[in-house]
Amino acid sequence: MIRERHFTEELAELKQRLLEMGELAEQRVQAAIRSLVERDRDLMAHVITGDEAINRLHLEIDDRCFKLLALRQPMAVDLRIIVAAFKITSDLERVGDLAVNVAEAAERYITHPPVKPLIDLPRMAKMAQWMLHEALQAFVTGDTEAAQLVLEEDDGLDALKTQIVRELLTYMLGDPRTIEPGIDLVLVARHLERIGDHATNIAEDVIFIVEARDIRHHATDSSS
Amino acid sequence: MIRERHFTEELAELKQRLLEMGELAEQRVQAAIRSLVERDRDLMAHVITGDEAINRLHLEIDDRCFKLLALRQPMAVDLRIIVAAFKITSDLERVGDLAVNVAEAAERYITHPPVKPLIDLPRMAKMAQWMLHEALQAFVTGDTEAAQLVLEEDDGLDALKTQIVRELLTYMLGDPRTIEPGIDLVLVARHLERIGDHATNIAEDVIFIVEARDIRHHATDSSS
Repeated sequence: MIRERHFTEELAELKQRLLEMGELAEQRVQAAIRSLVERDRDLMAHVITGDEAINRLHLEIDDRCFKLLALRQPMAVDLRIIVAAFKITSDLERVGDLAVNVAEAAERYITHPPVKPLIDLPRMAKMAQWMLHEALQAFVTGDTEAAQLVLEEDDGLDALKTQIVRELLTYMLGDPRTIEPGIDLVLVARHLERIGDHATNIAEDVIFIVEARDIRHHATDSSS
Repeated sequence: MIRERHFTEELAELKQRLLEMGELAEQRVQAAIRSLVERDRDLMAHVITGDEAINRLHLEIDDRCFKLLALRQPMAVDLRIIVAAFKITSDLERVGDLAVNVAEAAERYITHPPVKPLIDLPRMAKMAQWMLHEALQAFVTGDTEAAQLVLEEDDGLDALKTQIVRELLTYMLGDPRTIEPGIDLVLVARHLERIGDHATNIAEDVIFIVEARDIRHHATDSSS
């Protein structure tokens, strides 16, 4: 028996499911970095094989969006929210894939002695997670100021990545045995940087939804 | 004066614009790799600053999609095509960004003597370009068999990447002066692999549109 429900209620449910998907993605990033730092092989395997829940949510949320589009034929801001939801599920799934990439790099990394104590990579991971979390909260509440803070944080994330890569290079130049594991740490830094990029995508969607303008290419447009 | 037009005509136009965006993305990948192989600094700069056209198309196509959704309220396969179009523009824009990443790595690379003659990276680039091209053609014609071929080619691309990274590692272990430029070549291989992933996304969208089933997570589901 299908109960006739209000569109706003369905939209609230959709947002709730997106938050859940975001939490799963965050947890996977956290677990992947922890597996690297603690050289925990079981946790790596768990991250690498454990993407079923997030994939199921991806399909379920996409399905909700299709039904809302087809049955409710929403307009204006509601239409933009649903189209953004499609994009956000893609972003969150890629974040989950990046967690797998981190865990795969970790598996290779621990076949060598540690290059150095890992302090900055966990810091980078925390920043990326924070960005993801804030971007999704901003989506749910429609808070463009919070979204703007996420965009600003991305510069800090990129700067930290550059610093990490430079430091790793110094190790690799000094001791050839650190080359192979060093490359995997460089790749982890890149993966975390890309997680920040996905958070940035979501933050840009929020601003687009609320202000109905597309900020994605403004910088480019003005520089041309 | 707005002429009342058929929906099918508008859809054909949308597909045409997506093809144009795909061609731009392909050209940028090609130029980025050529700039690396030929150590052409001007071409690198051209790739790095020249993403305006593709970004403009991204906004224009998204705008078309929004209007089609709002004004035409399409159902079933048409709805799936338009939602896929939103995803494809995101994929193509990321491909353009990856071309920038390749050119940026090339800029760093040429500050060092060449590590080795670059044969396999251009081969990888050709494969990735082919996948992108075929995936978009499959989208326009709704050809799921062509889409399937793209999915299969992705394994070959990944295998070539693994081989390239392994060979680079041998160079880096043998001569520390190749470490820094070697890392940039590893990153280029990764960027090309990701371009293949975007082509794979598009191919999966094609199969989803035509067969109205979502193949994205079948492998995962069956393994769980």
